[in-house]
Amino acid sequence: MDGWLDDIKWDPDGLVPVIAQEVGSNDVLMFAFMNREALAKTAKTGRAVYWSRSRQRLWHKGEESGHVQQVHEIRLDCDKDVVLLKVTQLGHDPGIACHTGRHSCFFRKLEGDTWHSVEPVLKDPDEIYK
Amino acid sequence: MDGWLDDIKWDPDGLVPVIAQEVGSNDVLMFAFMNREALAKTAKTGRAVYWSRSRQRLWHKGEESGHVQQVHEIRLDCDKDVVLLKVTQLGHDPGIACHTGRHSCFFRKLEGDTWHSVEPVLKDPDEIYK
Repeated sequence: MDGWLDDIKWDPDGLVPVIAQEVGSNDVLMFAFMNREALAKTAKTGRAVYWSRSRQRLWHKGEESGHVQQVHEIRLDCDKDVVLLKVTQLGHDPGIACHTGRHSCFFRKLEGDTWHSVEPVLKDPDEIYK
Repeated sequence: MDGWLDDIKWDPDGLVPVIAQEVGSNDVLMFAFMNREALAKTAKTGRAVYWSRSRQRLWHKGEESGHVQQVHEIRLDCDKDVVLLKVTQLGHDPGIACHTGRHSCFFRKLEGDTWHSVEPVLKDPDEIYK
């Protein structure tokens, strides 16, 4: 039954924003989008599948990097237009969610009037995407 | 100096998506949007100011509810198009970020093929917005 997918308020492009949060640490790892097919596959397989807006196709997280996300919970917000995933970031320890080789995509911190990178690169992207 | 605002990749409507995360618990509280003025005010005042797309005006979080967000950190993601705030949710203990009177907006959990509300209402919205 796909009624739960009908409950979501998809945007005009048929997408919903998705926040991926790490189980345990509760760190926010990344932000991306899903279409209906991506969310259905995510729920069915327990692996995060997003919609790549730049490539206009399904993006099985980890398909190139091996950094797959195991999905433990799928949450929906009050307005039914934002999804939150509780995930375990697989493929490296500690988990790497960002294409820059960092744990989280949110590695830039505003200090004064300048953004500073405050999280280490855990693995060289050239090694991840070779 | 506002150069840090120029570093952000604003969407065609001049907005950026924003995730608010609670300091300490690391709970994801809510998701909203900011325009340039909202983010500038947030950084300057240390209080979260969003852009209300429905009302098309600045929305000082807590202006009606009293549930103000104290901002400790402002983060930016790898693609420079998503902001993450680290906040303390003021005005009620425990903090109420959601207009439904719940701690977090992400209170619906997918169980089987149905969304279930899994977080309690901490305060009646009729009491919050009277």
